[in-house]
Amino acid sequence: MNPRECSLASALNVIGEKWSLLALREVFYGVHRFDGIVRNTGAPRDVLATRLRTLVDGGVLRRVRYSERPPRDEYHLTQAGLELAPAMLGLMRWGMRWVEDAPVSATVFTHSCGGQLDAGIVCTSCGEDVGSGEVELPDTGTAQGS
Amino acid sequence: MNPRECSLASALNVIGEKWSLLALREVFYGVHRFDGIVRNTGAPRDVLATRLRTLVDGGVLRRVRYSERPPRDEYHLTQAGLELAPAMLGLMRWGMRWVEDAPVSATVFTHSCGGQLDAGIVCTSCGEDVGSGEVELPDTGTAQGS
Repeated sequence: MNPRECSLASALNVIGEKWSLLALREVFYGVHRFDGIVRNTGAPRDVLATRLRTLVDGGVLRRVRYSERPPRDEYHLTQAGLELAPAMLGLMRWGMRWVEDAPVSATVFTHSCGGQLDAGIVCTSCGEDVGSGEVELPDTGTAQGS
Repeated sequence: MNPRECSLASALNVIGEKWSLLALREVFYGVHRFDGIVRNTGAPRDVLATRLRTLVDGGVLRRVRYSERPPRDEYHLTQAGLELAPAMLGLMRWGMRWVEDAPVSATVFTHSCGGQLDAGIVCTSCGEDVGSGEVELPDTGTAQGS
């Protein structure tokens, strides 16, 4: 049997690695240059260079040249990259709530109303904001290999 | 300078790896046993065993013994594991939308109203459901190393 086809696996092929997500965090925070991303993530330089290339090839980041001699690029979010915000906010919120000693204050995003943004699940049919405990799992796959 | 402290990094220490997230997907789908998770993810057995141990140690999964001889455990979601649903739905939705050739149909969760669930960002202050393009990035860190 082949592995299950799934859009989560497709997403993880582009962004499914710790340093990739931490690099994206930095670009969300406005840190666009390689040395700054190294400094704020602690990623090994060679690993980070590879991850940034994957993110550019995957259409999540784009390069913007800021120096010709020597040639140097900044990394900026594409529309696809911007749309990772809900998933990243969800992971941040989960870390704050469930991982011991996780820092609480560093990850606040603000809405244009001036208040704090948060990631939630909404039902696209009835519009209700539901807690994750209310999620009903799909039938597909339940019978396979359990 | 030390790397930025962040709850995203804390979350990724527990679940920040492709096989970990795909294993969690399987448990969400009701596949609780090692062989089934191997089959549906395609993960190498030794890597998967290590990832499952990390998920158990991190409080995301718990073991439930189903055979004494030989000793065999199933993997079930804890409350912390269940609360990863919004972030995982967000990544699935992103994969469907942005990754070429990502499968579309396999990842539908249903709400108790019978409709389709989706992950969104809601403003916890005004309650408005906002698109990710509306997120205002925090000031903290913008000046550091960019």
